[in-house]
Amino acid sequence: METDIRRTHTCGDLRVEDCGRDVTLMGWAASVRDHGGRLFLVLRDRYGVTQVTVAPDRAPDLAACVRDLKAESVVLVRGTVVDRGANRNPRLPTGDIEVEAREVVVLNSSKPLPFPIADSVDALEVTRLKYRYLDLRRAPLARNLVTRALATRIAREYLDSQGFLEIETPILLKSTPEGARDFLVPSRVHPGSFYALPQSPQTLKQVLMVAGMDRYYQVARCFRDEDLRADRQPEFTQIDLEMSFATPELVQEVTEGLLVALWRGVLGVEVARPFPRIPYREAMERYGSDRPDLRFGLALETVTDVLAGSSFQVFSGAARSGGAVVALRVPGGGAPVGGGQAGGAGQDWSRKDVDALTTVATDNGARGLVWLKVREDDWQGPAAKFLSAEERGALRARTGAVPGDLLLLVADGRADTARVALGAVRLAVGERLGLRDPGRHAFAWVTDFPMFEWDEAGGRPAAMHHPFTSPVPEDLDFLESDPLRVRARAYDVVLNGVELGGGSIRIHRRDVQQRVFRALGLSEDTAQARFGFLLEALEYGAPPHGGLALGLDRIVMLLCGARSIREVIAFPKTTSAACLMTQSPSEVDAAQLAELHLEVRNP
Amino acid sequence: METDIRRTHTCGDLRVEDCGRDVTLMGWAASVRDHGGRLFLVLRDRYGVTQVTVAPDRAPDLAACVRDLKAESVVLVRGTVVDRGANRNPRLPTGDIEVEAREVVVLNSSKPLPFPIADSVDALEVTRLKYRYLDLRRAPLARNLVTRALATRIAREYLDSQGFLEIETPILLKSTPEGARDFLVPSRVHPGSFYALPQSPQTLKQVLMVAGMDRYYQVARCFRDEDLRADRQPEFTQIDLEMSFATPELVQEVTEGLLVALWRGVLGVEVARPFPRIPYREAMERYGSDRPDLRFGLALETVTDVLAGSSFQVFSGAARSGGAVVALRVPGGGAPVGGGQAGGAGQDWSRKDVDALTTVATDNGARGLVWLKVREDDWQGPAAKFLSAEERGALRARTGAVPGDLLLLVADGRADTARVALGAVRLAVGERLGLRDPGRHAFAWVTDFPMFEWDEAGGRPAAMHHPFTSPVPEDLDFLESDPLRVRARAYDVVLNGVELGGGSIRIHRRDVQQRVFRALGLSEDTAQARFGFLLEALEYGAPPHGGLALGLDRIVMLLCGARSIREVIAFPKTTSAACLMTQSPSEVDAAQLAELHLEVRNP
Repeated sequence: METDIRRTHTCGDLRVEDCGRDVTLMGWAASVRDHGGRLFLVLRDRYGVTQVTVAPDRAPDLAACVRDLKAESVVLVRGTVVDRGANRNPRLPTGDIEVEAREVVVLNSSKPLPFPIADSVDALEVTRLKYRYLDLRRAPLARNLVTRALATRIAREYLDSQGFLEIETPILLKSTPEGARDFLVPSRVHPGSFYALPQSPQTLKQVLMVAGMDRYYQVARCFRDEDLRADRQPEFTQIDLEMSFATPELVQEVTEGLLVALWRGVLGVEVARPFPRIPYREAMERYGSDRPDLRFGLALETVTDVLAGSSFQVFSGAARSGGAVVALRVPGGGAPVGGGQAGGAGQDWSRKDVDALTTVATDNGARGLVWLKVREDDWQGPAAKFLSAEERGALRARTGAVPGDLLLLVADGRADTARVALGAVRLAVGERLGLRDPGRHAFAWVTDFPMFEWDEAGGRPAAMHHPFTSPVPEDLDFLESDPLRVRARAYDVVLNGVELGGGSIRIHRRDVQQRVFRALGLSEDTAQARFGFLLEALEYGAPPHGGLALGLDRIVMLLCGARSIREVIAFPKTTSAACLMTQSPSEVDAAQLAELHLEVRNP
Repeated sequence: METDIRRTHTCGDLRVEDCGRDVTLMGWAASVRDHGGRLFLVLRDRYGVTQVTVAPDRAPDLAACVRDLKAESVVLVRGTVVDRGANRNPRLPTGDIEVEAREVVVLNSSKPLPFPIADSVDALEVTRLKYRYLDLRRAPLARNLVTRALATRIAREYLDSQGFLEIETPILLKSTPEGARDFLVPSRVHPGSFYALPQSPQTLKQVLMVAGMDRYYQVARCFRDEDLRADRQPEFTQIDLEMSFATPELVQEVTEGLLVALWRGVLGVEVARPFPRIPYREAMERYGSDRPDLRFGLALETVTDVLAGSSFQVFSGAARSGGAVVALRVPGGGAPVGGGQAGGAGQDWSRKDVDALTTVATDNGARGLVWLKVREDDWQGPAAKFLSAEERGALRARTGAVPGDLLLLVADGRADTARVALGAVRLAVGERLGLRDPGRHAFAWVTDFPMFEWDEAGGRPAAMHHPFTSPVPEDLDFLESDPLRVRARAYDVVLNGVELGGGSIRIHRRDVQQRVFRALGLSEDTAQARFGFLLEALEYGAPPHGGLALGLDRIVMLLCGARSIREVIAFPKTTSAACLMTQSPSEVDAAQLAELHLEVRNP
C-alpha cells in the first residue's frame, strides 16, 4: 500500500503561504481532541507538529478512524492546507495553518506506551532506557541529538578549515594496559591472543605525525573498562587532534578557535580569546582544583604560616607535618543577624548550612572543616577561642575578611588534601550564593602540570597525563633524581569547573621516552613489548609534535544544558555497563567461545 | 630548544611573490645534493617540497651540517626566499624559488631506512606494513589518505544538506550471530557475558527510525570476524544511512546524489543520473553477476532451448536436468587468419587464450568451457562436429554471431552456475579486449533481489541481504509456502562490476518480521533473545523505513585508483587479521584474563 507514496512536507514545514495546497504528511499521532463538531489530530515528526482537522459530518468514516487512533501510531494524512484564521497559534511555527484531512491512513498502530511522549516524564530511568526509542521521541532528548550532530559538524568544519586531516585509526588495537583497564577482544585466528579496544588513539596519532601527516584529527570512539562513576560510559567519543611542529601555544590557539566556533555555532555566544592561563600550582593553591570554576572569585588563601604556632592542634599539627592550613572567606556569611534560614550573600549561615559544608569537605578528603564567624571582637566558632588576637589580625589581613564574614578553614598534613577539600567547599558555597551562573562561560587553560603523581598503591610515580607527555626541557635532569619535581608540557582546558579536555607536547626522542618509561617503573622488556613500535618510530625522523583531546560527550552535554552525558548519547549504558534496551552484554553460544579458544571460569 | 619556534610556511607554500622574505620551514630531508660550489637540500612535508641551498664558502659550518644530514631527518631551516631565475622548475609548485639557508637545525635525526621514501618501492608488503609510518610518507599513499578525508567530508556535507542527522551508535553491542561471525568482548562486570562489535548498525538505525529521527547517517565502523579473502579487513567503514517513510526510489535518489557528489568532488567527473536499474534476474541472465560491469556489452545469451536436443551430451544433459546452456559471443574472436598471438578484436584467439578462459570458467564453478569458432561452413572447436546445421543456424540467430566470431558456452545442471561462470569469462574477455576502461564510470542499480537463497550447509533458506529486509508485498503469501520465490525490496548499487553498497526497505511490522525469522528457521525463543528489542520496538509506532550502506573503503579505493583497500586505510591488518606494526593481537597478562573470568583453552 505504502509502496510508492511520498510525503510532500514534514510536520514542521507548512506556513500560511501554503494555504490551498494539497499536501501529504506522515508522522506520529501525538494527540487527538474531539471538539464535538470537529476532530483535531496533532501530527508530530522530528521537524515539528502540524494540526490536522476532520469534520465528522462531512467525512464520518475518516472521523471514526481518527477517533480510534492509538496514541503514537504512525499516520499518513492527505488534505488541504487552510488558514486557522482567528485560531492561529503564535507559539507554533506551523501555528498559522491546519490541514483539513481528506484521507487518513494508519501506517502502523501503536500499543499503549509505558510512558507518555512529553517534554518531562517521571518514568524511572531504567524504563526510559529500556524503551530508549520512545524516550528519544521526547523533544528535549531529540533536540540533544540534533545539537550533538551540529556540534560535531562544526568541529569538523573548523578543523578542516585549519588543514587538519581526518584519519580513521583502528578499533582493534593492541593491549597496552596503562592507566585504565582495556576492553579485550579475543582473536580466533591467533589462539590465546587478544586485541584491545583503544583507550584513545594516542600512540597511533603520534605515529601519524612520524608519517608526516602534519595535522590529524578524528572524532574518535574510545573505551575504558573502568568501574563507572555516575557519569561515565564504557565507550565515549573524543575530538582527538595532533599537530607536527607544535608548541603548546599553537595547540591552544587551535583549540580555542574550535571551542569558540562551537559556542558561537550552537549557542550564539561569543567567547573571549585568548582564554586565561593558570599554572597547575596556582590553580591548586587558589581554587583547590586543577579544573577551577572561574565564574566567581572566593579564592583560597594559604594561612599555614599565620597559624603555625596556633594552640589549636589541628592548625599547628598540619603546619608541623609539612601540610597546610587553607582558608576560604565567605563575604557576609557570618553577618550577626539571622537565624536558621538558608545562607546567602549578607546572610548568616546557620549551623545546618555549615554542617552541610563540613560534609562536603570530609567527602572530599578533609578530616574536618573549621568555621569562624568574624567579628570585631568575639569571633564565633568552636576554634575561635584558640586564636590569639595576633592570629585573628593576621587571618583578617591575609584573607581580607571583615566583621560579618564567615571563614572556612581546612588543615591537613598533606597540603593538597586540604586544598582539594576546601576547593569542593568553595564550589558548594559558590552554588549556594548563586555565583555559578549557567549563562557565563569561564574557559581557562591549566598549564605546567607535574609530569608524575605519586601512586600510593604502586609505590612509584605514575604519569599524571600519560607516559608520552614531554617533560619541560629544563626539568629533564630530574627525571631520575627527583621525578615528582619534573613538570610536563601538558595543558588542560576547563570550563566552569569542568575539564573539557587535555593535551600536551609529546616526547619525540627515543632516549627521552625510554627515560620516562624507566621513571614509571616499566622494564625495558615490557616497554619494548608494548610500545616497541613507537620507540622505533621515534628513530626514523619523528617531528616534534603535540595535540589534545576534547571530551565530545561532555561538551555536548554542556552545550545542551543536560545534566548527564547519558542525555546526549543515543544508546547509553548504565553504570554497570549494560544496555537495558538490547540486554547486552549477554551470554553467547558455547560454540562461539570454543572458536575463540576460551572457557568461562566459574567464580 | 624548539620550545617557541614556529614555521612561517609549509614546504608547499612559497612562490615567486615571496622572494626576499625571511622564512622558517620545517620538514624532512628528502635528499641532499652536493654541486661542488653549492649544496641543495630538498625539504619535504605533507604539502610539498622546497629546495634549500647552502653556499659552503659563505657558511662552512652550515654546509657541514647539511652534508652530514641523514636522509629523512627532521630539519628546521631559516633563510631567505630567492628566485631560481634560469633554474626554475615548472613541474614543482614551489619550483620558481629556493630558500637560501641562514640556519639549519636538526630537530630529530633518522636511522637508515628499511626502504626509500619514493613514489614506487619494491619493498615487501610485510616490511611496508611493519614500518607503516614510513610507507605513509610516500606521496601516493599520503595522497590516498587525503582523498579519503575529502571523500568522507563530501559525503557528510551532502547528507547534512539532505537533512540527515549523524548519530553515533555503540561499538559495544549485543551478539546476534547472523551471517558473519561476531567479534566478542568479554564483560568484567557481568561474568560469562559478552558484548559483540557491530557487523553493522542495522538494528540500531532501525530503532532510531522508531525513535522518530527521520533521517540518520553515520560513517560507521563495522566488524566481521571472517576468514579474510585477499581484500577484506576485520574492521571496515561504511556510510550508513536510513530514512523514514522511504521508498526504494527515495533511497536511490539520495544515494545517487551522494555518489555524484563524490565523483564530482574528488575526480571532477559528472556522472549521469538516474543510474540504470537492472532487476537481479536480468543481471544474472545477461551478465552472470549481481554486480555487472556495464562498461561494455558482450551480454550472455541463454541458448538452452536451441541445444536441448543436441547430440552433445554436455548441452542436452544440462537442458534435461533443468539447467541452462549460456553463450557469449566474442566478436571477431574466431577470425580465420592468425596464429598464437594474443587475442583481441578481430584477432583469432589461440588455444592458449581459450585455455586461460577455461580456467576462469572452472575457477568460477563451471565444469568446462565449450568454444566454437563460427565459420560459414566448418565451425571449429571440439564440440563443432556435434552441432547440426539447424543448431548452428539457431545459435547464430540467437547470439548474432557471424563468421569470424568466437562463441564461448557453459552448460550446467544449475542454470545460475553456468551463468556465474560465463559471467566471469565475460569479464576476462572484456579485460582482454580493453573494454574495461578505468576512465568510464558505469553505475547501476540491481533491484528485485530474491529474499532468500538456499543455504546448502544449513539445509534451509538464508537471508540474501539480511533478515530485516522487507519482502515485496505481493510475495508475502509465499513466505511459508515457497520462500525462495519471495522477492525482497532490496537494491545494490554497483560500479564497473564492483558492489559499492546495498540497501532495502525494512520490515516495519512485528508480524511480518516474525514470519521472516520463522522462514529462516529461527525459533521463537532465539528470535526473542536476539531481537526481542526490535520486535518490541516495531509495536510502538514504527514508521515504514529503509536505507542503505556504502562501503567507504572500497569507494575510496576506486576514487584513488588504488589496487587494494589496504592502500586507503591508515593502519590496515593482514589477511590473518594481524597488525604488523604494533604486533597485535598479542598475549595479555594472566591477571587481565582472570578479571574477565576467562581461561584460554589449549588446543
